[in-house]
Amino acid sequence: MGLDEAARKPHDRLAAWLAADMAAVNALIRTRMASEHAPRIPEVTAHLVEAGGKRLRPMLTLAAARMCGYDGDNHVKLAATVEFIHTATLLHDDVVDESERRRGRPTANLLWDNKSSVLVGDYLFARSFQLMVETESLRVMDILANASAVIAEGEVLQLTAAQDLATTEAIYLQVIRGKTAALFAAAMEVGGVVAAAPEAQVQALRAYGDALGIAFQIVDDLLDYGGTDAAIGKNTGDDFRERKLTLPVIKAVAQADAEERAFWQRTIEKGDQQEGDLARARAIMDRHGAMQAARDAALHWADTARRSLDILPAHELRDMLSDLADYVVARIN
Amino acid sequence: MGLDEAARKPHDRLAAWLAADMAAVNALIRTRMASEHAPRIPEVTAHLVEAGGKRLRPMLTLAAARMCGYDGDNHVKLAATVEFIHTATLLHDDVVDESERRRGRPTANLLWDNKSSVLVGDYLFARSFQLMVETESLRVMDILANASAVIAEGEVLQLTAAQDLATTEAIYLQVIRGKTAALFAAAMEVGGVVAAAPEAQVQALRAYGDALGIAFQIVDDLLDYGGTDAAIGKNTGDDFRERKLTLPVIKAVAQADAEERAFWQRTIEKGDQQEGDLARARAIMDRHGAMQAARDAALHWADTARRSLDILPAHELRDMLSDLADYVVARIN
Repeated sequence: MGLDEAARKPHDRLAAWLAADMAAVNALIRTRMASEHAPRIPEVTAHLVEAGGKRLRPMLTLAAARMCGYDGDNHVKLAATVEFIHTATLLHDDVVDESERRRGRPTANLLWDNKSSVLVGDYLFARSFQLMVETESLRVMDILANASAVIAEGEVLQLTAAQDLATTEAIYLQVIRGKTAALFAAAMEVGGVVAAAPEAQVQALRAYGDALGIAFQIVDDLLDYGGTDAAIGKNTGDDFRERKLTLPVIKAVAQADAEERAFWQRTIEKGDQQEGDLARARAIMDRHGAMQAARDAALHWADTARRSLDILPAHELRDMLSDLADYVVARIN
Repeated sequence: MGLDEAARKPHDRLAAWLAADMAAVNALIRTRMASEHAPRIPEVTAHLVEAGGKRLRPMLTLAAARMCGYDGDNHVKLAATVEFIHTATLLHDDVVDESERRRGRPTANLLWDNKSSVLVGDYLFARSFQLMVETESLRVMDILANASAVIAEGEVLQLTAAQDLATTEAIYLQVIRGKTAALFAAAMEVGGVVAAAPEAQVQALRAYGDALGIAFQIVDDLLDYGGTDAAIGKNTGDDFRERKLTLPVIKAVAQADAEERAFWQRTIEKGDQQEGDLARARAIMDRHGAMQAARDAALHWADTARRSLDILPAHELRDMLSDLADYVVARIN
């Protein structure tokens, strides 16, 4: 690997290594998102699928399978399955969060309506299910069925934890395991299972996905307070407006003095938000080092992810996944 | 079977015959709708599951399996699976239709919010998926995955066909096959598959479910114009307000004179509805015999359902299913 190669983002290196597989995944996604009878389905799906998402989850499945020496084509089906599950949850999330922008574009619920987002999401769930059945692996189905349940449970938990200043870091961890890490972990695990890797390696792949997902979501939540619209393609301050208890808020609330506590009660619990409140929230977080503490937590999980890979045989893809764990946190400037 | 027995509704006779199985299904549903972390999930689910739905779909699975001599317990899992899929679609339907009443009670989206209905529906889909994986039958999973896709596709088709006076009877048939008949057919089919019935019998069970579902939905759509609030537990006129093109409307539109056509354009296409319009819609349908023609269609499908059972061996449950096909249409006074 030359200097040029090393300087490229790990995500791009993965994409280059897996280019042929990813082309097959994209072709399969296009075929399977079609609907003979309801043209609204591919319209809505294409809007999201073709908006230039990074296809991180399907790449995890492909990388895990290839790294374990898999030579069939079920990993392509599973990668498409994982992307369908992800797309379905995005469609439903945007309805739940009443979001207006996703990946830098207006959301489907804004362009069409909530109804289309709910039903097309259901369609994609069903399609993902059809695809995984085609692999004829009961274990794969079990893993993905469990992941789907954990995802939905995490979303409900997030809904009921919102606006609640008593939300702990433990609850937050459970929420983000559901909303993000469960699918990352399942994406990695099914790659190992389909490659018939030894059980210890399958568990290592799963552990990597879990820790990477947690690091990824903590960083995402940090960027929601610290990033710029252009950098992350969605509105900064969404979580504040939606009164979500993310890690930097939880950390700041834990150290709040009386005046700050009143501020959090007004803005998060009561939802009475005024001009300038977002900036004040950021200032309070900075004062308590909450952003930095959350970043440290992300670094810890990235480290856990990297170390999970230790027991896997040496492989170019393993190195890229290791670098990816660092890179996920490096998104915070 | 005495006179008293014959006079009982076929649904009640099925419930009595299958009482032990249904008790096992209800116990399984209660266990599996629980969530360790998110109490909102069982709250929302219980509201719907315990509202006294007729449990028609799980009974179809149990009846099909028992009729084919099945003696294991996978039919209980599949019956619960089918009820979870049904409950999930009801939760999402009520969001899509903005309904306020279901089974005579306020809907979950009204009692909690749309967000909870969307996410708890997703959770139940995932739970249904976990349950069917436990049967370890790839064919069962294939059938239910396909049914889930057809259901979602039918819902999207209904959404895009709404307000469109060009909707044909063929499109209507496709919509109701998706929204109702697909799950009835799958419920029957998996019962036969789990019992390892001969292929011709499995197909007969499926055909019965398909035709019964179509008859059932045509009648439901008729009742939406002709029933009373008390009788069906939801608001009469919902379909008219939601500008859905159901069979009696399609039949009336096909025979409309210029003045009637203007009425349908205003109320259904433009959605400009005024006091008295629902009554006028009914009067126009009566004038063209549209209600009677739709009832005849339902009778035809009930007959198809009954005849599908002919190749199955004689069995008390077969007789009850045959009577059920008649009874479904007899709901229209």
